[in-house]
This record gives sequence, C-alpha cells and structure tokens, in this order.
Amino acid sequence: MIWVYVEGTKITSMIRIHINCDMAESYGNLKSGNDIDIMPFVDAVNIACGFHGGDPLTIFDTITLAHQLNKEIGAHPSYPDLVGFGRRYMEMTSSELYAALVYQIGAVKAMAESIGSKLYHVKPHGALYNAAFSNQNVASVIVDAVKAIDAGLIIYAQEYSLIEKTAQKSGITIMNEGFADRKYNNDGTLAHRQLPGAVISSPEEVKEQAFLLIEGKALTISGKIIKVAVDTICLHGDHPEVVQSLTLIRNQS
Amino acid sequence: MIWVYVEGTKITSMIRIHINCDMAESYGNLKSGNDIDIMPFVDAVNIACGFHGGDPLTIFDTITLAHQLNKEIGAHPSYPDLVGFGRRYMEMTSSELYAALVYQIGAVKAMAESIGSKLYHVKPHGALYNAAFSNQNVASVIVDAVKAIDAGLIIYAQEYSLIEKTAQKSGITIMNEGFADRKYNNDGTLAHRQLPGAVISSPEEVKEQAFLLIEGKALTISGKIIKVAVDTICLHGDHPEVVQSLTLIRNQS
Amino acid sequence: MIWVYVEGTKITSMIRIHINCDMAESYGNLKSGNDIDIMPFVDAVNIACGFHGGDPLTIFDTITLAHQLNKEIGAHPSYPDLVGFGRRYMEMTSSELYAALVYQIGAVKAMAESIGSKLYHVKPHGALYNAAFSNQNVASVIVDAVKAIDAGLIIYAQEYSLIEKTAQKSGITIMNEGFADRKYNNDGTLAHRQLPGAVISSPEEVKEQAFLLIEGKALTISGKIIKVAVDTICLHGDHPEVVQSLTLIRNQS
Amino acid sequence: MIWVYVEGTKITSMIRIHINCDMAESYGNLKSGNDIDIMPFVDAVNIACGFHGGDPLTIFDTITLAHQLNKEIGAHPSYPDLVGFGRRYMEMTSSELYAALVYQIGAVKAMAESIGSKLYHVKPHGALYNAAFSNQNVASVIVDAVKAIDAGLIIYAQEYSLIEKTAQKSGITIMNEGFADRKYNNDGTLAHRQLPGAVISSPEEVKEQAFLLIEGKALTISGKIIKVAVDTICLHGDHPEVVQSLTLIRNQS
Repeated sequence: MIWVYVEGTKITSMIRIHINCDMAESYGNLKSGNDIDIMPFVDAVNIACGFHGGDPLTIFDTITLAHQLNKEIGAHPSYPDLVGFGRRYMEMTSSELYAALVYQIGAVKAMAESIGSKLYHVKPHGALYNAAFSNQNVASVIVDAVKAIDAGLIIYAQEYSLIEKTAQKSGITIMNEGFADRKYNNDGTLAHRQLPGAVISSPEEVKEQAFLLIEGKALTISGKIIKVAVDTICLHGDHPEVVQSLTLIRNQS
Repeated sequence: MIWVYVEGTKITSMIRIHINCDMAESYGNLKSGNDIDIMPFVDAVNIACGFHGGDPLTIFDTITLAHQLNKEIGAHPSYPDLVGFGRRYMEMTSSELYAALVYQIGAVKAMAESIGSKLYHVKPHGALYNAAFSNQNVASVIVDAVKAIDAGLIIYAQEYSLIEKTAQKSGITIMNEGFADRKYNNDGTLAHRQLPGAVISSPEEVKEQAFLLIEGKALTISGKIIKVAVDTICLHGDHPEVVQSLTLIRNQS
Repeated sequence: MIWVYVEGTKITSMIRIHINCDMAESYGNLKSGNDIDIMPFVDAVNIACGFHGGDPLTIFDTITLAHQLNKEIGAHPSYPDLVGFGRRYMEMTSSELYAALVYQIGAVKAMAESIGSKLYHVKPHGALYNAAFSNQNVASVIVDAVKAIDAGLIIYAQEYSLIEKTAQKSGITIMNEGFADRKYNNDGTLAHRQLPGAVISSPEEVKEQAFLLIEGKALTISGKIIKVAVDTICLHGDHPEVVQSLTLIRNQS
Repeated sequence: MIWVYVEGTKITSMIRIHINCDMAESYGNLKSGNDIDIMPFVDAVNIACGFHGGDPLTIFDTITLAHQLNKEIGAHPSYPDLVGFGRRYMEMTSSELYAALVYQIGAVKAMAESIGSKLYHVKPHGALYNAAFSNQNVASVIVDAVKAIDAGLIIYAQEYSLIEKTAQKSGITIMNEGFADRKYNNDGTLAHRQLPGAVISSPEEVKEQAFLLIEGKALTISGKIIKVAVDTICLHGDHPEVVQSLTLIRNQS
C-alpha cells in the first residue's frame, strides 16, 4: 500500500510506482552502474545497445536476469559515441540515424527473443533523448524506426516533447517519463547534468522528487514546482547512492 | 543453359550456379568491395554485421538493394575486430562469442524485417569461419546461436567442417560452400590467403575453379584436384577483378 | 618552370606549387584514398591519426614512404568519429579536445621520429578544421595543444580563420591553405561538400582552381572570384580523379 | 624505515618497496580502477594508451596528477581490444604489432612531455605482457619498438621471460616485476587469472605476497615458494580492496 498525494490531499492507493533504470551500460571490464543490486527494485530496464556502452555479453546477461525477474525489457539506443557515453549531440543524417536505430533496437530485440522473452519498449539515450525533445527530425526518425521494427513497442518520452506528439500521431504508445534524480527546467525539460544542482544525489531528495512526480509535479532547478505527466520514473544506475534511493522509495510504494 | 560436368561427362543443365558474395563491409567513408556492381550477378548476399565492417547505413542500403533485386539476405557475423577485418582468431569465451553472434545476427535480421524482407542464412566471417571448420566449441556456439534466433536459418559451411556436422545434428540446414577465388588444401580446407597462389585473381582461373566446384571438385594449392560438395559458390567482393570473373561465370551459367 | 599569373600578367617563375594531401586514412582492410600513387606529386602529407581513419600500420607505412620520398610529414588530427570519418561536429569540452589532440599529434610525431624523420606541421581534419575557422574556443584549444607539443610546428589554416589569428598571436607559424578540388563561399570559407557543385571533380577544373589559388584567388560556388592568400594547396586523395588532376597541375608547375 | 623479513628473521631496512600500478584504464564514463585513491601509495604508474582502456582525457588527467605527485610515468600499451580489455591474445603480424606499439607509447610520451614531464618506462598490458614472456617474436617486436622511440626507456618484465633476455641483449634496462595480488605457477609465470585462487584478494595475503617478493620469493598456486627476482611490485587498481592492501604494505615499508 502506498500513499499518493493528489493535489495536496494524501490518499491511499494500491498503485505501485513504475520505475525504470538504464542498464547493461558496462563494456567488458569497463564498468558503469550496478545492475545486479538495482534490478530487484525496478519494473523496467532500458538495455544499452552497444553504441554508448553495452558489449554483447553484458547485454545478454542483463536481459537474462531481467527476464528471470520478470522485468519489462526495453532497448536504449544511442548516438555512436562510446568515449562520450552518448552524451554529446551528433549531426547524423536522417538515414544514418534511422539505420543506427534499427540496428541497435534490432540487436537487443533479437537477444530478448532468443531467450524466450520479448522487447517491450524503446527509450533513446543521453543526447539522443534530449534531441528528441525539441528536434522534430530526430523525433520523427526515432518514431519511424520503432514503427518499422514493431508498431507495438512503447516509447518512453517526456511530456511536452516533440517525440511524444510525433509518436501519438503515428499511433505509437507513449509512456511519459519523469526523472527522480534530476531537477527540471521551468519549461519541463531536464536541467543539464553539468549545471550545479541539476543532479540530485541525496537519497531523501530523490525520494521526494519521485513522490512529487507521481503526483504529476516536479521540482525545478530554480526551486519552482511545475506540472508534469509521469507514467514511469527513471533513476540512473550510475549514481552512487541509487540503491539507497530505491530502498527509500520502495519502502513507501 | 549451362554445361555441368558429372563424373567426367558433359551434360546439359538448366541449373543456375548459386553464387554468394560478402557485402556491406564498407564502414562509412572507409570502403571495401564494390557491392552495387556485383549485386546483379549473385543469388545471395552475406551482410557484414558491424564487427569487421558494416556501419548501420551501409548495412541498411545494401539490404534494401538486395531486397529490391530479390536476393537471399544472410548475416555475416565476425569476431569484434574492425582494424583486423575479422581475419584474426580471437580467444573468446563461449558466452562472449554466443552473445556477440546473437547481437550481430539479430541486428541484421531486424534490418531485413524492417523493410519487409527476411533473413535467409548465416555465414560466419573470416577467422570465425575458419575456426568453425576445426574448433568444435566454436562450431557448437555458432549453431546454438543460430538456433536460438531462428532454427529455420540456413548455415553456409564447407563440407567436412565440424560446423557442418554440428548443424546437421542440431537439425539446422546446411548449404555447402565452395570458393571460386581461392585454392584449397588437400584436406578440403582453404589455403591461407597469405600463401602465394592461395588467392586466385585471374578471372579465367576463377571461372575454372567455379566450374570445377559445381562438378564437386576443387583445385588445391599443390595442383591436385580434390572432391568437395558444393551448393553455393562464394566470390569475394574486394578482389579487383570480381566483376569480370562474375561476368565470365554468368556467360556460361 | 611554371607560369605564375600575377594580377593578370603571366610571368615566369621557378616556384613550385606547394601541394599537400590528406593520407593514411585507410583503416586496415577498409580503404580511403590512393596514397602510393599520389605521394610522388605532393610536397606535404597530412597523416591521419587513428580517430577518423589511420590504423597504426597504415600510419607507419605512409610515414615511411613519405620520409623516403623526402616529403614534409604533418599530423591530421580529428574528432573521435571513425564511422563518420571526422566529418561531423562534436561537442567536446575544451579539456577533452585538448587531450585528444595531444594524443593524436603525439602518436604521429613519435612514429615520424622513430624512423629518424620529424613532424613538420599540423592540419586539423574535417569538421574540426571547419570549427577552427569560426569557433574561437576550438581554435584556441588547437593552438594550445600544438604549442604544448612543439612550438616550432606549423599549422595549416585558411586565411581569415580564427585559428590563423590565434596562432599568429601565439607565435605559431601558419601556412595558408587553399583547396583545389573545392569551391568557396563568398566569405572565404569552403562551400559545404554536400552542396551541389561544392566538390570539383573534373581534373581540368581542379587545375584551374589550383592556378587561381596560387594567384591569390578562388572560384566560389556562386561563380564569383574572391581573394584568398594561399601558401599550400590541398587536393583530397579520395577523389577518383586526383591523380589526373595532380598530373595536369604538375605538368605546368 | 621498513621491516624486511629475510628467511624468517625480521630485519630493519631503509629500502622503500617500489610499487607500480596500472592506471588511466577508464574510458570516458566507463570506469576501471580507483586511480586517485591509489596514486599516493605507488612509485610508478603504468598509463593505459587507449587500446584496452584510457581515453585521452583520462590519460592526460592521470599523467598530470602523477607528475604533480612526482611519480614515474610509464606507457602500458596493449593489443587493440577495448571490449576484451586487452586480455585476449591476438594474432598480429610483427609489423602490425610494432606500429601499434610505437603509436601507443608515442601518444603517452607526448602527453607526458607536453606537461614538462617525461616517459620513464614501458610495461606491456594483459595478453601482450603474457605473450612477451614466452613468444620470442612478440618479445623482439616490443624491444625494437621501445628502442626506436627511446633506448633510455626501462621495460618492466618478469624474471625468466624472453622479453627480459631480449631487452638485455639490446641494451635496454629491465626492471623485474613481481605481482603482489597474484599467485604464480611453479615455473615463475603468473597463474591465469581465471584459475581459482590465482587472484589474491585478501589485503593481508596481498601484503604477505608483497613481502615475499621483496625477499626474492613468491607463493605459487600449488602452495610452493619459488625464487623470483623483483625490482618493482605491481598491484592491480581494479581489485576492490587495493587501497587496504596498499595501506598494509606501506604501514611496514
């Protein structure tokens, strides 16, 4: 049983917060995140596809564990930029980006199906996720690539983003995503991770942002509370205290 | 109409020689092969999967052209070795190799299906192809990976190879492959490409090796003629005179 | 003996046109350019450093040949983008870019010195070259990195570029570069290679642009003739008719 | 003042144990090791060169810190195998390997010199280190590459290794290396890291192996004590308890 706060009134709800986490981002002996400890807390995993992290064995092992624990498996495609961890915008042509997406999503989909599981959703990574918010061309290419692979796939996207609108027009289901370990800008975008205060590291504050988000609100970097629609909450697995944050959240949901 | 020589007797046959070629091995602006000129001559294309060559856009464009021309599309997975073009044996664990294969084959399969086409076969590339001849573990991992993706996929393999036997035991269909631009060792393996005379470059001699192969014979590097079973003949697209060789062969078949 | 046209008057000169060419851009079996055929025609070679092309053996063999033929050896560092051939702008922090430059230039410098040769100049590649024209931060980082390695290195840069002015302030020698196989914008920058007509492919027209450049002029994409200062002329080695262009130029210079 | 145990008797010695550690192996956001915490304890750092780990900025920052703390800076070149962390033997030709070594060592040497520091030594990484023990061709290529760059560089090598003998014949100085976090085979080679017990994780046992090594002895995986000559002791930075091991060792030396 969890407490959900609706417009300031505390109500009781049976609804479990839907939490997703980026995973499989390690690359051989080079590590990112702490998938094994985090996996039990989350509902959905976004699997790195090899372009910003994620060697095939890491992908396979992570998908296998997710399948055993009955988690929703998604693809987490990126710009091709391992050394930059996919966090730098790249000027790809539409056809380059389209092909890169089909390649990455396809590889992870085949991995999931090879163990009797299935691909459930797609969430663009890093700079590609940000570009999909405000760049119509990038948004359209992602939606087209997802549709070409499987029109039943869900796309994770922020409310107000161009990819949200584009997917809706295309008949692709969207799950609106909120970020519990990040503060927002007043326009509903994420504050850039290099701004002071943009990344929330205190588990208590992460929990607070998570519970704001499920109320449809978010704390911005300037201290305002804005409205956002949220179906799933992301926590980043490479934050040092993510397990504590997840424990706090799950204690109450 | 072609002439097929059966046990020394020339007979007339309507059978078209089945020719396959490795394609999509370019990587952005870095080029290998001459796919557009070669494509019309062949029946099947083996698509590089990104690990020895083959960026996503090259893969996508090559698959699209192959589909338009009604060619059989196969995946051509490799060891992860772009700078070595997949031609160096690598000590991968079984689980590393298995995951690398599912990833690569899966990416190309998704590409093909995204344009309404399908994946038809799998042919290991370079050092992996050679390892699958004589290394039981490699042979088993490849067969297992193919089976996990789609047990209806055909594997290209040389007669006498361990992967041929392993696939047959697993119920996977094999097409026996011969090499028109390469001389053989007396044991039926390919002579190593760095041995003098191992690579056949004269289009006339390539044609002769091709017509020997469809008779079930092959010329070895020591000048012997050995017996080999051949269902499909490979020509390498990065040989400078491959278009002339293909023209000579197709003039008679 | 060559004819040099100074302000419309044909005069006789013994001055040889200084030609440079980007080389060593192949990557193992993946090919770009035709270094061996081009090398004899040029005065200076810009050696790819591994980030957009140029595996170590290709670098080493190209440097060795350049040293034997007594060519000036330069480093040709790039954004880290093999699949994009360094032709896409990347948002690197100053410290990331600085380190990437010292790494690349240092590797090629060590290669040259290991065979008893020396590094003579540095020319940024592709999108980095373009960014250095108009982005003060990129220009400064390049100049700083060159200076930290060896303040005696020459930087190739277009007239009017920010990197030209920055280098001059820092006491680094500049050689002004013109492009014989490219048309210009009216402001002295290069017309983007994807614009129709931006790349000059006819050897006769390449020769004409080369002889305009040594007069201090350039043909723009809109058909104007603008003034440019040029100390060295670049021809791109991956243009199919580069050897014919070079032959035409050298026949007259 | 340190305590050295010679044949069971505790004696007082002023000799500080020379400790080296592999560093700069992280690759952008993908992490390996804990360089900042380890650096103060060691005398020499072996800097990854980009082929198994080590992006340019990580290399630069690590060299800068090492220079500030007055540590000996060495290059730690590898086979080109980021996903395999350089731990897999690769069949490179002599010329491929030679060029790959000059490239890597040269890049790190230039980095060190660009901040007014210098390169002090070279230590091959992973599978290349192992190959240099018993493969004469690999040993010769490494020694030749080091000599071509700077004959004054020191090579780290195990006693009894072919690279030790080859370097000595070439006039290159060797420092004999021992491994405090690994058990040995009875022939003086390292036990393979995947054998049970080969990697020593207990800080107390690491300390014991370290103090054995400075006595010229080593514990083998079968429990024997063998003789080894050791000038420098390596601890691996990616072991979770390396800081505790180093603290224990430095408390007594």
